[in-house]
Amino acid sequence: MKLRTLALSGLVLASPAFADEGMWTFNNFPSAEVKKKYGFEPTKEWLDQVRLASVRIAGGCSASLVSADGLVMTNHHCARTCIENLSGLQKKDFNKDGFFAKTLADEPKCPAMEMNQLVEITDVTKRVQDATKGVADDKFAETQKAEIAKIEKECATSDEFRCDVVTLYRGGRYDLYKYRRFQDVRLVMAPEDAIAFFGGDPDNFMFPRYDLDMTFVRIYGTDGKPLKNDTHFKWSASGAKEGDLTFVSGNPGGTSRTLTVAQLEDDRDYRLPMRLFRLSELRGLVTEYQLRGPEQKRHSNDTLFYVENAFKALKGRHGALADAAFLGKLKANEEDFKKKVNANPKLKKDFGKVWDEIAAITKKNAAIRKEYGALEGGPYSDLFSKARTLLRSAEESGKPNGERLKEFTDSRLPQLKAQLLSNAPIYKELEITKLTWSLTKIREDLGPDHPVVKKMLGLKSPADVAKALIDGTRLDVLAAPEQKDPKTGKPVPANDTFSRTALFTGGKAAVDASKDPMIEFARRFDAEARAIRTRFENEVEGPLKKQQELLAKARFAVYGEKIYPDATFTLRLSFGAVKGYQEDGREVKPLTTIDGAFARHTGADPFALPKSWLDAKPKLNLETPFNVATTNDIIGGNSGSPMVNKDREVVGLIFDGNIQSLGGDYGFDESQNRAVAVHSAAILEALEKIYGAQRIVEELKGKATSSGAGSK
Amino acid sequence: MKLRTLALSGLVLASPAFADEGMWTFNNFPSAEVKKKYGFEPTKEWLDQVRLASVRIAGGCSASLVSADGLVMTNHHCARTCIENLSGLQKKDFNKDGFFAKTLADEPKCPAMEMNQLVEITDVTKRVQDATKGVADDKFAETQKAEIAKIEKECATSDEFRCDVVTLYRGGRYDLYKYRRFQDVRLVMAPEDAIAFFGGDPDNFMFPRYDLDMTFVRIYGTDGKPLKNDTHFKWSASGAKEGDLTFVSGNPGGTSRTLTVAQLEDDRDYRLPMRLFRLSELRGLVTEYQLRGPEQKRHSNDTLFYVENAFKALKGRHGALADAAFLGKLKANEEDFKKKVNANPKLKKDFGKVWDEIAAITKKNAAIRKEYGALEGGPYSDLFSKARTLLRSAEESGKPNGERLKEFTDSRLPQLKAQLLSNAPIYKELEITKLTWSLTKIREDLGPDHPVVKKMLGLKSPADVAKALIDGTRLDVLAAPEQKDPKTGKPVPANDTFSRTALFTGGKAAVDASKDPMIEFARRFDAEARAIRTRFENEVEGPLKKQQELLAKARFAVYGEKIYPDATFTLRLSFGAVKGYQEDGREVKPLTTIDGAFARHTGADPFALPKSWLDAKPKLNLETPFNVATTNDIIGGNSGSPMVNKDREVVGLIFDGNIQSLGGDYGFDESQNRAVAVHSAAILEALEKIYGAQRIVEELKGKATSSGAGSK
Repeated sequence: MKLRTLALSGLVLASPAFADEGMWTFNNFPSAEVKKKYGFEPTKEWLDQVRLASVRIAGGCSASLVSADGLVMTNHHCARTCIENLSGLQKKDFNKDGFFAKTLADEPKCPAMEMNQLVEITDVTKRVQDATKGVADDKFAETQKAEIAKIEKECATSDEFRCDVVTLYRGGRYDLYKYRRFQDVRLVMAPEDAIAFFGGDPDNFMFPRYDLDMTFVRIYGTDGKPLKNDTHFKWSASGAKEGDLTFVSGNPGGTSRTLTVAQLEDDRDYRLPMRLFRLSELRGLVTEYQLRGPEQKRHSNDTLFYVENAFKALKGRHGALADAAFLGKLKANEEDFKKKVNANPKLKKDFGKVWDEIAAITKKNAAIRKEYGALEGGPYSDLFSKARTLLRSAEESGKPNGERLKEFTDSRLPQLKAQLLSNAPIYKELEITKLTWSLTKIREDLGPDHPVVKKMLGLKSPADVAKALIDGTRLDVLAAPEQKDPKTGKPVPANDTFSRTALFTGGKAAVDASKDPMIEFARRFDAEARAIRTRFENEVEGPLKKQQELLAKARFAVYGEKIYPDATFTLRLSFGAVKGYQEDGREVKPLTTIDGAFARHTGADPFALPKSWLDAKPKLNLETPFNVATTNDIIGGNSGSPMVNKDREVVGLIFDGNIQSLGGDYGFDESQNRAVAVHSAAILEALEKIYGAQRIVEELKGKATSSGAGSK
Repeated sequence: MKLRTLALSGLVLASPAFADEGMWTFNNFPSAEVKKKYGFEPTKEWLDQVRLASVRIAGGCSASLVSADGLVMTNHHCARTCIENLSGLQKKDFNKDGFFAKTLADEPKCPAMEMNQLVEITDVTKRVQDATKGVADDKFAETQKAEIAKIEKECATSDEFRCDVVTLYRGGRYDLYKYRRFQDVRLVMAPEDAIAFFGGDPDNFMFPRYDLDMTFVRIYGTDGKPLKNDTHFKWSASGAKEGDLTFVSGNPGGTSRTLTVAQLEDDRDYRLPMRLFRLSELRGLVTEYQLRGPEQKRHSNDTLFYVENAFKALKGRHGALADAAFLGKLKANEEDFKKKVNANPKLKKDFGKVWDEIAAITKKNAAIRKEYGALEGGPYSDLFSKARTLLRSAEESGKPNGERLKEFTDSRLPQLKAQLLSNAPIYKELEITKLTWSLTKIREDLGPDHPVVKKMLGLKSPADVAKALIDGTRLDVLAAPEQKDPKTGKPVPANDTFSRTALFTGGKAAVDASKDPMIEFARRFDAEARAIRTRFENEVEGPLKKQQELLAKARFAVYGEKIYPDATFTLRLSFGAVKGYQEDGREVKPLTTIDGAFARHTGADPFALPKSWLDAKPKLNLETPFNVATTNDIIGGNSGSPMVNKDREVVGLIFDGNIQSLGGDYGFDESQNRAVAVHSAAILEALEKIYGAQRIVEELKGKATSSGAGSK
C-alpha cells in the first residue's frame, strides 16, 4: 500500500479548489466548474450524446458504442466469461488463443450477456419518499420496495426496456433510469489473455503498465441483425497526450464515501477482513485446483481471475482504512459535518441523532450477518443458484408484483430469465469443489450444531453432500434433447420434466413435483433463508434507508446540491487529465509505450508476450503509446469505460486504477489516484498489425460499415 | 466470536479481587493469594517438585513426566509431527490408525524431538542490563546479544544442558533458565487422529468437547535406556470435579498483555490481517492438495492442521481487538497507567515518553516488515531452510560466539544440529507446492521488479524455479548410503560430498564448494537477507528492547513486583478451578462425559469415531468424565500441560481453550475464558478398555515399572 502521503481532497464536500473528483450523474454534472478548470463546458446536448454512446454490461462492467453498426468496445476482462463460455461450447481456448471473427457471420453469441443503454432519467424522489412517509422502521423496506416495483413496472412497457429506480445519495434522491435492453451480444474480437492481462496478478493495479485489455463485441437487434445506431463515439486520430482533458463515462459499481465513521470502522474491523479471509482461501483452493489438468485450468481461469482481482482490490481498501492518516481525514470530515448540523437548531433537531442511529443499526447488522451470508448469500454453486431461482420463481410469480422478492419483480424478469436459461457451460467438477468448500465455510460460520447446517449435511461430510448433489442434479441440462422414434426416425416430443427450461416454463406445478436433488436441497432450508432475509430487511435495511435519507438531507442542507452521490453501478461521468504522479520520491510518467511490453517480457507466465506479438514485433511502431494514466475518479465497474476527449472521440479504454487508487472507495486523492486506460493508438496498432483485424479498424475509423466489411 | 459480554479483569494490574489470572513464573508465584482464595498455599518444595515433573517440547508444546521410567504425557497434536514422520519412515499411517508399542523394545525414536526439563533459574538482570548501559539505540540489540551468548555459554557446560537467558516483563527482568536436555524421545502410544481431534476444525476451540487429545512418549537417556527419574506426577484416583482447585504447569508461547495501544492497533490493522490472509490462502491450497491422493493427504495432514489451528486462533485474537469494548478496556488500562506515571514528576521524567517512542518504532517496523518477512522469514520450504542453515552455519561457526546470529551460538547448537540432521522424511511434492506458493507471495509482497525477486526468479515462473530447485537438490539425503565394492562385496567409503551430514561436518570448505542448487539459491540473496535482518535489529528490535525495559520499570514502580510477565514459552504456573460459564444466556457445564462423543458421532469426518471406539462401546463406562473446563489462564504452547491438584496428582491434560479464550493473548476474562483438558479418568478408561494398553495404565498407577511391564 502506498497511501502514505495522502492529501485527501474535500471528498464529497464542496472544496474551494475544485478537484478532479467525483463520479457525477449526467443530470447534475458540474459543467461550469469543468470550464473554470479546463476551459471546456459540456452542454446538455454533449452530455446526452455521451450518455447514449455509453452502454452498461448488466453483469458488472461498462462499454461503449464505437460504430454505427452496434460495435461495442469493452475490456477483455469484462468479456472473460463470454469468452470462456464460448470456449467450452466450441472446445477451444479463446482466452488463451484469442478470437477474431473474420466476417459478421462468424460472430458467435455470448451466452447471457446483456447490455443496457440509458435512454431516460426521471426524478421520482417525491413519489418514493411520499410512499414511506410515517412508515414504521420495520415496514420501511417492504413499503418502499412495493412502490419501486410499481414505478418500474409502469415504465418497462416491454422486454425491450429495463427500468430501475436508483437510490442516489443513499436515499437523498430517487431517479428512474430507463434503459434499452439488448440481449443478443456477439463476440467480435479478443486478444490473447497473455497480452490482455500481461503481468497478471503481480501487475494488476500497478502502473507503469502494458496491457491490451480490450475486446470488441457487437449488439444485435431482435431481428438478428447488427444494431443500427446513430449515436456512437468516433475514434481520435491522435489519442490522449499529457495534459489533455479526459472524460470517462461508465458505471462505477459502488463507493462508500458517505458512510459514517461507525460504518467505516465496521468495514475495517469485520466486513473487509472477513471477505478477504474467504477470498484468500478460495484463491489457494483454485490455484491448486488448476493443477488438476489443462481443462480444469481453462474452466477455472475466470474464477481465479475474479478472486485475485477482488482480493487485491479489497486488500487495498482495507489498507486505506487501516491507515490512521487516511481514516483520520474521514473522521475529521464527519466531525465538521456534525458540527455544522449541531450549530443550527433546526438541523440539530432533525438530523442530530442520525450518526448514533446508524451506529446502532450497524451493530444489529453485525449480529445477523453471518447467518444472512450463509443462508441467503448462500451456498456458492451455480447449480444451487439455479435451483433456488427456479424454486423461488415458482413461488414468487404467483404473488402481486409489489410483494415479490425484488429480483422477481416484472421489470427484472427478462434478465433473470436470460441468465437462468443461458447455454453457458457448467463444469460439474468445479461445481463440486466450490460447493464442498462453501458448505464447509457455512458449517464454520454457523457451527455444526446449527439447525440449518444439520439440514444441509445430515450425517454426511460437506464433500459427500456436494458430490451427491452435483452428480445427481440435472439442472445442468438446459432442455432435454429432441428424441427420435427408433423405428420411424421421426422426432417425438422429449419427456422433459427435469431441464431448467421445463421447470421454469412449467412453473409452480413442475417445480413442486421435481425430485431433483438440488431443488430438494434448496427447498430444505428456503424458509430459514427467507426468514433471515426478512429479518435483515426489517431490522437493518429499512431502518438504515430511513436514517440515510435523513443523512442525505442533512448533507444537502449543509453542503448544497452540487455534490455527487456515492456510486451505484449506474452511468456516471468523471473528468480529469492525463497526468503523472510522484511515488516514493520518483516521478511516474503518465504514458507507456509498446516497447515497454517487450522490455518486460521474460517468457514466463504472466510476463510472457503471446507469439502473435513476438512475431509482429518488426512491423510494430514501438513508440506507440500503450497505456495511459489520468486523474479521472473511477472505481470497479468502470472497467470497459470509454475515455473520450472534448470532441467525444475515443482516446482510451479504461481497464484499471493504480494501487494508490484502491482507497478510492472511501476517498479520492488527486495527487496520487490514477485511472489507467489502454491508449487508443495501441488499440489500432494491434488490431491492424498484430491481429489483421482490418474490418474492425475500418469500422472504428468510420470508413466502412461493419456489415459492408463483413460481407465483402 | 463470542467476546461480547466481556468484563475484563485488571489484566496485569493488581486488582482488588484477585482473579484466576496470570501465567506466573515459578520464582514469583502468588502463593499467599492462592491460599486466600482457595485455602491452599503452595510451598517452595511443592513448586520445585511441580517444576521438575514438567517438561517442555522444544518445538512448541508442554508435557509432563508421569512415571519413574521417563514416561511423558502430552497431546496428540504435540506429537503429530513425530507420528507423521514415523508413518513416513515405516510406510504406515499412525495418525490415522493410532499407535501402541506393546513392549519397550517397540518404542520407536521420534526424529528431532527434544525435551527440556527446567532444573535451575538464576536472576541475571543486573548483568544483562549493565552490559547495555549507555549503549546507543542501534547497537543495543547487538550488545545485549553478545552478553547473553556469553552467559548462556558459561552455563551450558555440556550438550546435556540447554541454557536460555529469558527476557521477562519485556526487559524488566532477565533470568537464566537452565534445562536438562533430552534428545532421545520415543513414541509409546497414540490414539487415532479421529478421536484425538474428534470434531476437527469445526470443534477446535469449542466447548463442550469430546477429544482424547493425548499421546505418551518416553524419554531415553544417552545410555539408550528409559530415563530414571524420581520426580514425576502421580495419577489422581478421582480426577477433577466441579469446583476443584487446579494448577496448570506449562509453557505458554507468548502473550501481548503489556503491549501499548499503538502496538495493539498495529496488530489489529496490519500484523494479524496479513498473517490471516496468508494462512487462509495456504489453507485453501493444502485442502485441495490433499485431494491429489491418499499419500499426499497423509503427508500434508500435519501442515493443514497447523494452518487451520493457527488461523482459528489468530482470527479469535483479531476478533478480540476488533471488539471496541475489549480494546476500550485495554485503552483505559493504558490511560490509567500513563496518568499514574505522569502524576509523579520523577516517573514522568524517566518514563513519560515511552509510549510515543514505542509508537514511532512500530511505524519503523511497518516500513520494513514486508521485506523482512520475505527475505529473512524466507521462502517457505523445509529444504530451503536446511540450505540456509548449512550456508549460515558454515559462516557463523568461524565467528566468536557473541558475534554470531543468535541461533548459531554455542548453547543453541545441539538443537540446531538435531533438527538439521534428523531423519524426518521430506516430501518433495509438497515441498514444490509450498515453495511455488511462497515464491509467488514474495513476488506479491515485494513486486516483480525488486532486485531480490529478480535474483530468485530470473526469467522463470515461481513454479518452474521451485520445481527445478526441489527436484535438483540433494539436501533431502541425510547421508549417502554406504557403497559396496561390486567385486568383493565389501563396504567402501561413500563418495558423499552432497548430503546434509557431509555438508554440515565438512564446514565452510564443503559448503563453499557445494553446487547444490538449493545452496546456490540461498547463497544468491543471503547478503540481502542478512542486511534486512541487521536493519531490523538495529532500527526496531534494539530500540524497542530499550523502551520496553523502561516500560517494565515504570510498571513495577506503579503496580509493584507481584505482577506476572507476558508469556515467553518458558515454564509458568497458573491456578484456577473447574467451573462452567454462561454463553448466549445458557449455562455451559464444565464437564462432559464419554457418551457425549457417541451422541456427536455422525460417521462422517470429522465427526466419525474410530472403529476401536465403536467396537469398545459396550465395555465402556459411558458416564466417565471426558473433557473438563477450568478457569486456568493458558494460551498456545500450554498444549500438553499437566493439570494437577494440590497433591500434585494428574487430574487432566490441557489441550485447548474455549473460543472465548482466544482474546487471551491480550487480556483475561475469568467469567468466560476457559482452559480445556482431557479428564484423567477418560485417559485411563481409554487406555485400558479401548487400546489394551495395560502396561501404560500400570505404569501411570505406579504399580509396575515400565521396563517391567515391557519385558514381561
